[in-house]
Amino acid sequence: MLKFLASAALLCASFIVSASGYVTHIGQPGDLTLADTNKRQTATIWVDAQANTGIKMAARSLQQDIARVTGLTPVLTSDISDLAGQVVIVGERGHSALVDRLIDADKLAVMAGSDKWEGYQLNHITNPLPGVEQAWVISGYDRRGVIFGIYDLSEKIGVSPWHWWADVPVQNHEKLFIRAGTALSDAPKVKYRGIFLNDEAPALTGMVHEQFGGYNAQFYQHVFELLLRLKANFLWPAMWNNAFADDDPQNMYLANDMGIVMSTSHHEPMMRADKEWNRYGKGAWEYSTNPEELYKFWVEGAKRYKDKEGIFTLGMRGQADTPMSEGENIGLLEKIVHDQREILSDVMDKPLSEVPQVWALYKEVQGFYERGMRVPDDVTLLWADDNAGNVRRLPTQTERERSGGAGVYYHFDYVGGPRSYRWINTVPLGKVWEQMNLSWEYGADQIWITNVGDLKPMELPISFFLAQAWDPERFDAQSPARFTHQWASQQFNGQYTNEITSLLNTYTLQNGRRKPESLSPDTFSVFNYHEAKRISLTLAEAADLAESVYQQIDSEYQDAFFQLVAHPVWATQAVFELNHSQALNALYAGQDRATTSAMAAKVNAWFERDAALTRQYHSIQDGKWNHMMSQPHIGYVHWNNPPANIPPVVHTKALAEPAVANMGVAVEGSAAYWPASDELALPTFTPFGEAERTLTVYNRQAKPFDWTATVSQPWVILSAEQGTVTGDTNVAVAIDWSQLKTGHHTATINVKGTGWGGANVRVLAHKPEITQRPAAGDFLEADGYVAINASNGVVTSNATGSWQKVALHGRTGAAMQAALPPYTSLKPAEAPALEFPVFFTSTGEFPVSLQLSPSLPFDSTTGIKVAVELDGRHVATLALPSQKDKQAWADGVMDNIKHLTTSIEVETSGRHSLSVKALTPGAVLQRIIIDTGGLKPSYMGPLERRK
Amino acid sequence: MLKFLASAALLCASFIVSASGYVTHIGQPGDLTLADTNKRQTATIWVDAQANTGIKMAARSLQQDIARVTGLTPVLTSDISDLAGQVVIVGERGHSALVDRLIDADKLAVMAGSDKWEGYQLNHITNPLPGVEQAWVISGYDRRGVIFGIYDLSEKIGVSPWHWWADVPVQNHEKLFIRAGTALSDAPKVKYRGIFLNDEAPALTGMVHEQFGGYNAQFYQHVFELLLRLKANFLWPAMWNNAFADDDPQNMYLANDMGIVMSTSHHEPMMRADKEWNRYGKGAWEYSTNPEELYKFWVEGAKRYKDKEGIFTLGMRGQADTPMSEGENIGLLEKIVHDQREILSDVMDKPLSEVPQVWALYKEVQGFYERGMRVPDDVTLLWADDNAGNVRRLPTQTERERSGGAGVYYHFDYVGGPRSYRWINTVPLGKVWEQMNLSWEYGADQIWITNVGDLKPMELPISFFLAQAWDPERFDAQSPARFTHQWASQQFNGQYTNEITSLLNTYTLQNGRRKPESLSPDTFSVFNYHEAKRISLTLAEAADLAESVYQQIDSEYQDAFFQLVAHPVWATQAVFELNHSQALNALYAGQDRATTSAMAAKVNAWFERDAALTRQYHSIQDGKWNHMMSQPHIGYVHWNNPPANIPPVVHTKALAEPAVANMGVAVEGSAAYWPASDELALPTFTPFGEAERTLTVYNRQAKPFDWTATVSQPWVILSAEQGTVTGDTNVAVAIDWSQLKTGHHTATINVKGTGWGGANVRVLAHKPEITQRPAAGDFLEADGYVAINASNGVVTSNATGSWQKVALHGRTGAAMQAALPPYTSLKPAEAPALEFPVFFTSTGEFPVSLQLSPSLPFDSTTGIKVAVELDGRHVATLALPSQKDKQAWADGVMDNIKHLTTSIEVETSGRHSLSVKALTPGAVLQRIIIDTGGLKPSYMGPLERRK
Repeated sequence: MLKFLASAALLCASFIVSASGYVTHIGQPGDLTLADTNKRQTATIWVDAQANTGIKMAARSLQQDIARVTGLTPVLTSDISDLAGQVVIVGERGHSALVDRLIDADKLAVMAGSDKWEGYQLNHITNPLPGVEQAWVISGYDRRGVIFGIYDLSEKIGVSPWHWWADVPVQNHEKLFIRAGTALSDAPKVKYRGIFLNDEAPALTGMVHEQFGGYNAQFYQHVFELLLRLKANFLWPAMWNNAFADDDPQNMYLANDMGIVMSTSHHEPMMRADKEWNRYGKGAWEYSTNPEELYKFWVEGAKRYKDKEGIFTLGMRGQADTPMSEGENIGLLEKIVHDQREILSDVMDKPLSEVPQVWALYKEVQGFYERGMRVPDDVTLLWADDNAGNVRRLPTQTERERSGGAGVYYHFDYVGGPRSYRWINTVPLGKVWEQMNLSWEYGADQIWITNVGDLKPMELPISFFLAQAWDPERFDAQSPARFTHQWASQQFNGQYTNEITSLLNTYTLQNGRRKPESLSPDTFSVFNYHEAKRISLTLAEAADLAESVYQQIDSEYQDAFFQLVAHPVWATQAVFELNHSQALNALYAGQDRATTSAMAAKVNAWFERDAALTRQYHSIQDGKWNHMMSQPHIGYVHWNNPPANIPPVVHTKALAEPAVANMGVAVEGSAAYWPASDELALPTFTPFGEAERTLTVYNRQAKPFDWTATVSQPWVILSAEQGTVTGDTNVAVAIDWSQLKTGHHTATINVKGTGWGGANVRVLAHKPEITQRPAAGDFLEADGYVAINASNGVVTSNATGSWQKVALHGRTGAAMQAALPPYTSLKPAEAPALEFPVFFTSTGEFPVSLQLSPSLPFDSTTGIKVAVELDGRHVATLALPSQKDKQAWADGVMDNIKHLTTSIEVETSGRHSLSVKALTPGAVLQRIIIDTGGLKPSYMGPLERRK
Repeated sequence: MLKFLASAALLCASFIVSASGYVTHIGQPGDLTLADTNKRQTATIWVDAQANTGIKMAARSLQQDIARVTGLTPVLTSDISDLAGQVVIVGERGHSALVDRLIDADKLAVMAGSDKWEGYQLNHITNPLPGVEQAWVISGYDRRGVIFGIYDLSEKIGVSPWHWWADVPVQNHEKLFIRAGTALSDAPKVKYRGIFLNDEAPALTGMVHEQFGGYNAQFYQHVFELLLRLKANFLWPAMWNNAFADDDPQNMYLANDMGIVMSTSHHEPMMRADKEWNRYGKGAWEYSTNPEELYKFWVEGAKRYKDKEGIFTLGMRGQADTPMSEGENIGLLEKIVHDQREILSDVMDKPLSEVPQVWALYKEVQGFYERGMRVPDDVTLLWADDNAGNVRRLPTQTERERSGGAGVYYHFDYVGGPRSYRWINTVPLGKVWEQMNLSWEYGADQIWITNVGDLKPMELPISFFLAQAWDPERFDAQSPARFTHQWASQQFNGQYTNEITSLLNTYTLQNGRRKPESLSPDTFSVFNYHEAKRISLTLAEAADLAESVYQQIDSEYQDAFFQLVAHPVWATQAVFELNHSQALNALYAGQDRATTSAMAAKVNAWFERDAALTRQYHSIQDGKWNHMMSQPHIGYVHWNNPPANIPPVVHTKALAEPAVANMGVAVEGSAAYWPASDELALPTFTPFGEAERTLTVYNRQAKPFDWTATVSQPWVILSAEQGTVTGDTNVAVAIDWSQLKTGHHTATINVKGTGWGGANVRVLAHKPEITQRPAAGDFLEADGYVAINASNGVVTSNATGSWQKVALHGRTGAAMQAALPPYTSLKPAEAPALEFPVFFTSTGEFPVSLQLSPSLPFDSTTGIKVAVELDGRHVATLALPSQKDKQAWADGVMDNIKHLTTSIEVETSGRHSLSVKALTPGAVLQRIIIDTGGLKPSYMGPLERRK
């Protein structure tokens, strides 16, 4: 039975389609009839005979899309005499006789917003031409403007951009109308928006070789069309063992024809692939020793792309994306850039300032910049994230003046330390929004490119990243959640949208806590706060929900649902449970439980579940996506992936024959067990804390035995006092607080089964003296800690700024962002506050840990800073560290958290106010944990306890 | 092929038989013919018709023994008219008409040494009586003297005391003669010498129930006869679930008839078994609340044993050998002893001073004594060891004046903390000798009793303990080794004596290092000093030797050899290797080796090997010893044994399919591996240290791969530079020191196989500057330590004392004992020294650890102290701690070592003299380890390095 989830929010803005819906299925008088199967009637599509090839190809796509949707194929013509009745007119202003004629005839007005790079407008016009009753005029400032206008219509009639790439079924409609009077315009805000096909072996490469025979134009045509349908324009092509322009010379012509701006990746200068040097280069890839051959090599790159739309990457790294062997030789690198520009100046028939060039400040190259190396102003500076989604540096106010401007190179997939992530989608959209929004606000508007690895299965974040790039200003902190909902609705035609949205958010939340590749059995605690268990239950619910939707969704959507939703949900669960069962297997082995081998079997079953999911992925659509999930992801022991998914080492325990009984007793929170240890104690009970603790009576062997439990004090309550144990029996322990005075109390539970004397388990209860009562909403001290989710704080905004909640961000799924104007740096007194009422039952100096997203101080003049105050008194100003401490940085990106620590002096028990003030932009606060003496190790910290 | 080992020492004294051999197989003129099968002639055995039953039974044993040896059954008679020719006359002086007549007739003189408790004399007399040509007169001071004289002859003719208990074949001889002129006498020095059948379930109890139907007289007859053949006289009977006098009333009559002095164990007062209270007692076992019933219960005990030979245990503990619930209530205990003596005074028809009584100062009872509780002087004080073979307290000079004297209660088997040891023999004889010799020297001469658990398989230490008890003064530091050789020779009739001696010493050395029950996988290091590996090789050699001897020894001896030699050797190996393979399994699992599961299979195979050895033990002699090895011994996790042998948890690793190759690289001394760690380094090379270190290139998966190793410096020498790895490949690394100047040097070995970049293994070499040269025999600093076996020191004796080497003692098999008169306490300047020439290559303040046997300061006025000197300057006086620090004591007895630590300041490199001075008796020094900065963890410390 499928549970219907409440929709998270009413959706008031649409990102998937760039304007409100102008396509309807019930015609009104005056509407343009695009297609009507009842009447077997379609509009005629008109495009100039001399139109740009890309426009013609897009028009043909539209023709096919209408046919896919309605079964009726419209006439596509360049002959004006064909026009009558209902007409779609497609044309680039200044290059289309008919569009220009309509403008000249005042039938069509150039709209604001359409008159710039890639701008387009969409106009419903009545009687524009003789015999034409209604026209839908798709016109643009340039060719890509027109193309995007065309694909906007394709999307509106029901063709998802992911139709080919994720087998999203085309929506079938009998009738398509365009609303009378529609007049829309749009244009992108970021100039170059694209993706990097990287780390593409073995998955994408396996698929491409099987389906297309190689990275040729037949393959790239699908990539280019996807980009255009997503209104993107830019591509760094596959380069792992490939060379775009050399593998198939048609690749670059097709890109240029379709309107895709090509470049080569950050470490491949002058439009030549790294692998081309292997094929054709002479001598070493070393400009200090082999400048002539390299110069010639680069001249060829410039010449080859002279007449095509591309961006020339400048500079140089070592081969295969490694640092140059010369080290940080700034003089040499400046010479390289100088010579590369000399080549461009010689080869290109236009001023250098009109040749798009980029210098990627990736990894160590940013160091060159920081140590003073500069390139001419017309070169775009491409700042990079830390490969883990945290931008390292954004333009200063001065740098914004540069004519070449700036861009950002981002990652959804990465090969490198601290650990590669190359498998399923692990990117919470809230984080993408937050980091790219900062990039936008700090003026990085020339290039947004993101490494998408194999492309699939990054469908959701690719959609989001490119949509945000189109118009970052249309995106706010609520956008990630809304976008996900709309995207779910689009791909599945509105079926189970809430459920699917929930599933997408659940798996990205989990992978955003820790990427599957970085999981180890001890990541999530099996000892404290039921941490692993809670996640296990959540993922099991999601897996069940995915199964229900999979069974109930229209069967033609099953393959798309599997790829986009069910597989990542199930795969996330499988790898989590693989690690979880390994942790329990190790725990049980250490506790000598008879159930050890059964848990080892679960480990093996989860490993096999993962393999089965991969096989399923490879088998759908008659094997279209064979190889696509072949990226090894189980068995990482260092940064690099293992050569295959590696079955984990398990602990097995054979049982004595003939069978004997052998009691073990363990307690929550501890790996110890009786009789190996005589020191068992349950975690201390406190009135605001866990009401129940668990002790486990278990068999270490096969023969059942009887047990009894006896308490030494009447205030200890057991859920069972005797029984027979075959495997494990959990006994809940609770406290009758009414019997206790304030103070510390100790009791013992004696568990007798087999063995000498039985286990004595200590029970400690602390009833603090409370003179004040907590107020509703107070964060309560319990079990030796106070835990706070930042999103439950009270915001005190001021004129300068605020804190705002970002959904789908951080390890709890909702983080608080310091919302301040760029370049701001405030004193605590001026800063907006996030306040938390805290109720302490004890006093003392307590360590406080602020859990922030591991953002990097992209603005070195301000850093990223917050101030902590207690009861209005300043406690500390804390700053996020730079990337310089490599281990701290690695921990931060593995954990997806940075811990900033201070301590507070709590002099009286009762109510206090803790506040965190935003001194600069950039802080994303997720949680606060105060250790009042009982905090136990866990990955995420304990759950909140609130009055 | 059997290797013949050199005999350890020429054997110049015999312990097995109490005098030199008077039995021959080639008769000389005048010899008495005991039996001659050629002539079908035997001597006649004469015993008084009114002789004590025990003497008669012993005489009948002699008759049977002669029959067993020769096939001829001598006539046994009490009729003087039967006497003619060759005669054996058996009689107690004063109770034997014939013996007294011979004395009166001056045919027989009472010899010195024979005229006291259990004294006997053996005389060859020619023509003592008419018609009698030769007589062998076995006469004694008392009945047991005569009995011991009889069994002395039995042993001499070739009947081992272990004939029944270990199936030692009787030697077959055609002729037995007694040398003409033989006149011998002997008497014991310790009055009561015996064993305690304790902890007797499930092994002995299983056997007894199956063979005898219970602990009845049919069973005890074998125990009594064994004791008498071993010239012992005292027994604490089985009491676990048994009551000697109640289970079978014949038990006590038979004991008394045969001459065995009975008592009840240390916690069972007044000759009543603990279990009798369960059967007949009314009310609580609590003298404070139930004195009347207890008084009545004890009166019955006294009455029951009134006319029999016994020792009354006084005092009281809780039931089942636990402390009294009243706690340390001295007043109550004094009242109890008072009342018990009142009962004895009332019941016995003799003065209390003639009623043997004992107060066992066991465990907490010693505390009562130390806090001032006293019993009358006529009560023997029975001091106890710490249950682990270390005597806790011996009589002071004042206490030696007490009329009741003192005894010692010792353990070869124990149920309790820190860990029970109830399975095979774990007692090195050198330690028994050393502790019991101290006991003798400090005047504990009334009772020596040792807990032998199930009796079997403690045959060897029982023999030794009782032989030493007979005459402690005949035993010196060389005796343990000599005794073992003679015992081996006796049991196996001189076959493979050297090999068998070596096997006995090897397994007891190993079990003396650590008892099998206390082994864990990490006891012996698999990382450092090849510790586990060396032991493994030694045990494998011993196991092979045992197999060879087993195959080649006369087949009728195979069962005895299996029980006494092969089983403990093989079983010791099996449990060691079980733990060793567990350690390697865990190491391999942690290093992700493809061989992990193969090592898991070895774990299981060793577990099964142990089980098979048990089955073999239970099957020999048509199942005579079924149950005897059923004591669980595998799977201990706390003091108490598990309910069965527990198959250990193992780590298994399935391999990826289809097969892949996946290199791992590990180095000696570390659990880390590449690629999980990038920090691999071999242990630092030093010129006097290990010449070779090992790195291992291994497969983590199933597909073989090729590897290469490249060194960064020419002074690093590899045993192989390339190869193909299927499982594991070890590469030896050595240093060409000739290429190195003095100082520290670093190089790298790059191992390339699968994976990115390969493993870089650091090689560190330290060539110290040496200005002086070491002399032959110097203990060399190497690899950051100096290791010394104490037995290789130079002894400087003085008038007061010396150090002496005790073979078969300590973890190296030879320890140095402070040989000083009792009660001595010296200043360092007066003390005998043990000196060690040490050659240092570095300078500094270095920790020094003296490894001593975990002896307890039995003399609280002196303690056990040594002084450490360096180059004649005092460094520190160190004292062995008392048992008060429970954890330190537990560690000491688990490890069979105490570490006494100090530090020395070495100001110059080169030669120095370290000496240890004996300030008191009691210190047993085994090793000295000086940490000059590179000492690694191990159980026993590194091996010596000597010039």
